[in-house]
Parts: sequence; structure tokens; C-alpha cells
Amino acid sequence: MLVDILAKMYSHFYNVQVDPMNEVLVTVGAYLSLYYAFLGWVNKGDEVLIIEPAYDCYYPQVKFAGGVPVPIVMNLAEGATSASQFTIDFDDMEKKINKKTKMLVINNPHNPTGKLFTRQELEKLAEIAKKHNLIVIADEVYEFHVWDKNDMVRFASLPGMYERTISIGSAGKAFSVTGWKLGWAVGPKQLLEPLKAIHQNCVFTCSTPTQMAIAQAFQLDWPKFLNDPKNSYLATGLSDELRDKRDKLARMLEEGNFRPIIPDAGYFMLADYSHLKEGLKLATEQDPDDFVFSRWLCREKKLAVIPPSAFYSSREQKEKNCNMVRLCYFKKNDTLDAAEVILKKLGKE
Amino acid sequence: MLVDILAKMYSHFYNVQVDPMNEVLVTVGAYLSLYYAFLGWVNKGDEVLIIEPAYDCYYPQVKFAGGVPVPIVMNLAEGATSASQFTIDFDDMEKKINKKTKMLVINNPHNPTGKLFTRQELEKLAEIAKKHNLIVIADEVYEFHVWDKNDMVRFASLPGMYERTISIGSAGKAFSVTGWKLGWAVGPKQLLEPLKAIHQNCVFTCSTPTQMAIAQAFQLDWPKFLNDPKNSYLATGLSDELRDKRDKLARMLEEGNFRPIIPDAGYFMLADYSHLKEGLKLATEQDPDDFVFSRWLCREKKLAVIPPSAFYSSREQKEKNCNMVRLCYFKKNDTLDAAEVILKKLGKE
Repeated sequence: MLVDILAKMYSHFYNVQVDPMNEVLVTVGAYLSLYYAFLGWVNKGDEVLIIEPAYDCYYPQVKFAGGVPVPIVMNLAEGATSASQFTIDFDDMEKKINKKTKMLVINNPHNPTGKLFTRQELEKLAEIAKKHNLIVIADEVYEFHVWDKNDMVRFASLPGMYERTISIGSAGKAFSVTGWKLGWAVGPKQLLEPLKAIHQNCVFTCSTPTQMAIAQAFQLDWPKFLNDPKNSYLATGLSDELRDKRDKLARMLEEGNFRPIIPDAGYFMLADYSHLKEGLKLATEQDPDDFVFSRWLCREKKLAVIPPSAFYSSREQKEKNCNMVRLCYFKKNDTLDAAEVILKKLGKE
Repeated sequence: MLVDILAKMYSHFYNVQVDPMNEVLVTVGAYLSLYYAFLGWVNKGDEVLIIEPAYDCYYPQVKFAGGVPVPIVMNLAEGATSASQFTIDFDDMEKKINKKTKMLVINNPHNPTGKLFTRQELEKLAEIAKKHNLIVIADEVYEFHVWDKNDMVRFASLPGMYERTISIGSAGKAFSVTGWKLGWAVGPKQLLEPLKAIHQNCVFTCSTPTQMAIAQAFQLDWPKFLNDPKNSYLATGLSDELRDKRDKLARMLEEGNFRPIIPDAGYFMLADYSHLKEGLKLATEQDPDDFVFSRWLCREKKLAVIPPSAFYSSREQKEKNCNMVRLCYFKKNDTLDAAEVILKKLGKE
């Protein structure tokens, strides 16, 4: 059964004994685990710390539960070239914590930046979680998308953190079958209980054939992940493919006169387009510049990107963070090649 | 796409033009459509009329949404032998309606009784829905499980009812793949809008491969359903198989000294076990008799049944309705044969 292999894997990752029947909940995508976690734990007026830029479902899901999202905006150094240069101001973060603060959401590897949090950064977050008795949602759906599997520090593996963490994973992400919609929440029984109560009324169960297929995929790959990583899709297969595509897109973006922020993990790359902006009339619409630029790129140049200001909640931050676009590099090589033609042309305009 | 073929089919069934993009919502099983419908429309204190005995998710789902379930208990004539003898006292039903009454749930074909509501009964319910301006949830997941497809009167096909009805269907039930977890809600745009808003935050989308498979299955069967029903799974294939199994189980139950209530449709059959009861010591536990009897049948005789008192909400009704068990006849013939051996023995005890 899927819960058995998941329990086995996460017991290894967290170095605790994960009980398959009580400490794993399979859901319709990681998305539904997030919905359950917020709806199950956030009461009216409870504050939830969200590190920004942030995956765009956290805000509406927290609000749907009656909670108040509190943004913790990461800083990116001037002239940065790597997603690792996104940093949290921990002092500022602590100032935003009060007695209403109930939960902290950590998305690692991070979307949309592609940042992989370091052990040191995660330990600092763990210290804060402990000090203020916070429940932590560790959204780690890109956990197998790191170039060296040892760089991935799962939050629940830190001392004392399993007990306060709901970790969220995704089969769609792990095996590159995002349309299959299968994910899970892992955590101590008492933390999962409200999630299960909602599950009982909401979808009740998840697709049996999908669960069977994913269980088999994990069962096949797991021994290789541990003992023969070169032949493991989860340990190296996926990430090797991703790294090649990342490097390719980075080169292409430079040719196109973008300045890529090289990601540590995941599917996505941010790229600064300031140099291109000067020749364009962007200030004609109400939207942030990156929306206007993304629309232009899509409509006029046939290149689809996402405006990252959408991942910030305040108008101020949207305006401060509208010089970039987010691109997905996990595409067929043909698609990347077609994008290269467009970017090369753009670089010469 | 699945929504296209669903819109085509229900346009035919309801005799309205169902817009695939706005009037069909695909969900993770019919169960999730029910959850969305209650959460989306029922506000705190709103009353929801539920015809009892009732499928066991309605109550907790309505309560989860903050609503108040109001039972409308069907009567079964003394000595009844057919599920069609379950009847609603419409006068009594109207007495339970007040200004807080917002919604009526109609489960047709009905689980657990196997009753198929007649056009006349449904017209009476439509009249009440119109008079009191109720939203109707038409849970019609067993719509293809009727012996003659023309006997199935879909509530939204009645004059003026499409506009106030959210109809709910199930691919798992239609194609006997209940573990696939795919269902849908069909209704006018304005009725589906709150469901879609929750969907956006809850699961966001449903499994793509499952949707593609079900779309293809409907596309293949639909022309036959209309023009060549003898070769259509949905028109006759499923129901012929079900009817044979129903007849077999009914015979077996009589051999076992049960009195079956022959269902008009669906998977399930109720059967009165009063004759068997006399020899058994049932009154030793706190639970209703049918719980005790079902447990005994399962543990001692290895025959699994469901106690129907579970489908009533009040203690009074549970006690009044504990002389029956619910059996599922949609089983492999081997399983039915094994049950026959048990039932025959039981009849001779």
C-alpha cells in the first residue's frame, strides 16, 4: 500500500518511526493536503506566517479558513545571480509574531524562486517555531528536485520538529506526472487528526489505481535511492534532467539579454528583464510592469512566462518586485529549442 | 474533453442547453460535489431537508457547512415487498418547511432502499421546491442502474427545475469503477459558482488521465445509448447484469428466511430478518438490533451486511427501523454463490 512505502521513506528521511496508518494521509494532490492543514488548524483570526514570494494558493486557502496571512518578505541582494541569495530577515520575522500567530509555512525547495533553504536557515526557523510554539507546514513537494539529494534538509528531520510539523509531498512532482493529482501529508497523529476529519467529509478516499501505481513506483525506486543512486529516478534521474534544462535555459536567457537568477532546485527560474524594459512602453496599464511585460512576451513573442509580482500580497511589494519573470525549464527539448530562437531574436532587438 | 460529452449527455437528459465550460464541474467523486454544494450554499443555521433513510454523508456534510439537517422520514407499508412502497408524506414534509429551509436533497435512485422515484412523486417534490424557493441537490449517481432507462426521471428535466437544481453524477458508478473517484455537478452557472470557488482552493483540478479515460468511455457508449441501447453499457449492459444479480440475491434471501424488499434500481437490497431474530439473543447490547444482528452475521456466519438504522438520524427512527439489513448484490457470481451457501444453511437453522 502507498501509505506503507511512504511511511518507510519518511521514517528514513525524518529519522523517526512514521506509522503508516496514523501518520500519513494520502490526498488529491499536495494542494488538498494544504487545504486540509489550513482548514483543520487555522481558526478565525489566527495568523499564519508566509514567506514571500509565495506559492499562490497559501493566501486564499488561509483566508478561506478564516485566518490572517502575514507576509515575511525575503530580500534579494542587488545584482544577485543565484536563488540562494534570497534571504529572510529573522529579526523582522520575529517582530511579526504575536500571540495570535499559530502557524508558519515553509516551502522548500521554494517556488517561485527555486531557492533551497540551507540547514542553517532551517535551524533558525526551527528555533523560532519552537520559541513561539508554532505549527509548521513544510510544503516540500520539490524534495526530489535537488541536484544532490543530501542538500535537501527536510524540516521534520530537525531535532524536535517532527512533533510540530505537517510535511506535504507530491507524487505528481516526484514522478513528473502532475496531472495524476496525488499527494500526502505526513506528521504526528494528533496533528493529522483534524485533516482526516475533513477528508472524511470532503473526498473520503483517493483514486485506488493511482495510489497503486505510485506505490509501485516508489517501491521500485526506493532501494536504488538508498543504495544505487545513479540508477534512481528520485535520487538523480529527475534532478540530472532538470539541471541540464536549467543550465540550458540560463544560457538562453543570457542570450536574450535577461539576467537569470540560477535556482538551486525545482522547475522554475526567475530572470530579470530590466535591460529589455527600457525599449518598451510598459507604464500604460494599471498592472505591475511584469504583468504588462509577460503579456507582451506571450502575445507578441509567443513566449509564456509568469509575472512574479503575483506571488507577493502587498501593493508595495508587487511594485518593488516587478522586474522579473518566472520561466519553467522542465519542458521538452523541442520546446526549449523553440524558446531559444525567440530569446536569441529578442537579444538582438 | 469530459465536460463536453457530459454537457452533451445532460443537455439531452434535461432538455436544456448545458454549457460545458460554465455548467459542469468535474470533481473527485460525486462525494466532493456534495461537499462543495453544501459548503457553497448552506450558511449557518440554514435548514436542509433530507429524505430518510439517507446516504450517510449528507448529515455530517450539512453540519460541517453549519447547516441543520431536517429529516423527512419515508414510510414503508406493513408487509411491503418492493422498494417502491417507500413513500413520502408530502403534507408532513411541508409542515417541516419554514423560512430557514434552503435546500432539499433528493437521492434518486435511492440508497439504501433501491427505490426509484416516480415522475408523479418527483413532480410533487418539484412543486414544493418551487413553492418554497428551495435549491435542490439531485444526487443521481445510480442514474444508469435502472432496468428500463426511460424509468429514470432526472429531477432537472422537470419543468422549471434545471434553474434550481445541482445534479450530481458519478463515473465510478456509471462504469463500475468506484475506486477511480470521478464525479460531477451539473447546473446553471450561478448555482455552480460557489462550488467552483471552493474547488479552486480545495483540489483545484482532477486527475487528467482519469478524466480522459472516462470521456472516451462516454463518447464510445453515448451513440449506442441513444440508438442501439441493446449494445450500450449505460442503457442496458450494466442494468441487465444488475437485475440478474438482484433476482439471484432475492431468491437466496428467501431461502435464508429473509424477506427481501425488491429494489427498483442500484446496487443494494434491504431485507427483513424478523423471522430469524426470534431465535437470537439480540437485546444484550446498547446498539439497535440490526447492528447486533449484522455483527453476528458477519462474525459468526461470515456474511457482511450493513445495518440500515445507520441511515436514520433520530434514536426513535433507529429503533423503529432495525428489522432489516442492507445487502449489496453487485458482486462477482462466485461471491454470490458463497453467500447462497451461507443463506441456505441459515434458512434451515
